[in-house]
Amino acid sequence: MTRLLVAALVGLATTLPAAAQFQKPEDAIKYRQSAMFLMSTHLGRLNAMAQGRVAFDAKAAAGDAAVVSTLSMIPFAAYPAGSDKGAPNRAKPEIWSDAAKFKAAGEKMQAEVVKLDAAAKSGNLDALKGAVGAVGGACKACHDDFRAERYSN
Amino acid sequence: MTRLLVAALVGLATTLPAAAQFQKPEDAIKYRQSAMFLMSTHLGRLNAMAQGRVAFDAKAAAGDAAVVSTLSMIPFAAYPAGSDKGAPNRAKPEIWSDAAKFKAAGEKMQAEVVKLDAAAKSGNLDALKGAVGAVGGACKACHDDFRAERYSN
Repeated sequence: MTRLLVAALVGLATTLPAAAQFQKPEDAIKYRQSAMFLMSTHLGRLNAMAQGRVAFDAKAAAGDAAVVSTLSMIPFAAYPAGSDKGAPNRAKPEIWSDAAKFKAAGEKMQAEVVKLDAAAKSGNLDALKGAVGAVGGACKACHDDFRAERYSN
Repeated sequence: MTRLLVAALVGLATTLPAAAQFQKPEDAIKYRQSAMFLMSTHLGRLNAMAQGRVAFDAKAAAGDAAVVSTLSMIPFAAYPAGSDKGAPNRAKPEIWSDAAKFKAAGEKMQAEVVKLDAAAKSGNLDALKGAVGAVGGACKACHDDFRAERYSN
């Protein structure tokens, strides 16, 4: 992902309040779940290469990382107040009651994804392995704190 | 979206058969629906600016177009044979029985999105208006032919 794109997306998050971007809570829920699902799918493909379950393909890895990179920037604008309800979802109340910690956890993931993107573009499998592990760790840490085990409405 | 990224994603689609990328038909269905929903959300934001319902914000528009651009490349790898069933979806049988036409319709949309991305980056609202309309037209043409009115399993 280019720095220009990162800047544009950060600008997007800054200029438009999250609540204004979704007409209904269920739209925000579907949006963030869609982004998370696509991220997990492409990170899963990178992980399969990192673990040797799928042959390393540098071009495919760069494509997967580019998708993860773009998507990593967008879910956190999709947690407006009140979007804990409206459709089945696993958002814990701490997302809103401990918003600073949630924001930091998201930014940690985004920072690791920047490194993942660079590692994938380098075509170096060992670099990719480390970066995939670090992103996965950042995902898990945030999920442990902010994602419930079960869906609720 | 950079040419490098486009090349990487095209490479991805070429090297990995779609069927191998998803363990279950429902994964492919959820994947393509997630990509389409995010695309429609961000195209909707661009359309709101094009129609003057939301104030034009060049930085936000560039961010929206960048997301649409990345996502436009990924859904068409998610129609493996047999993924007409497995979860509620609106894929018509013609996706598989008239695969060449479906492919062409997807490529038409992707080509219009490349222009959209350029228009959004230019910061010119009139250019954006035309490009948003052309992308919307490409979406609609494909949906008319290949998306059913109702969900089925």
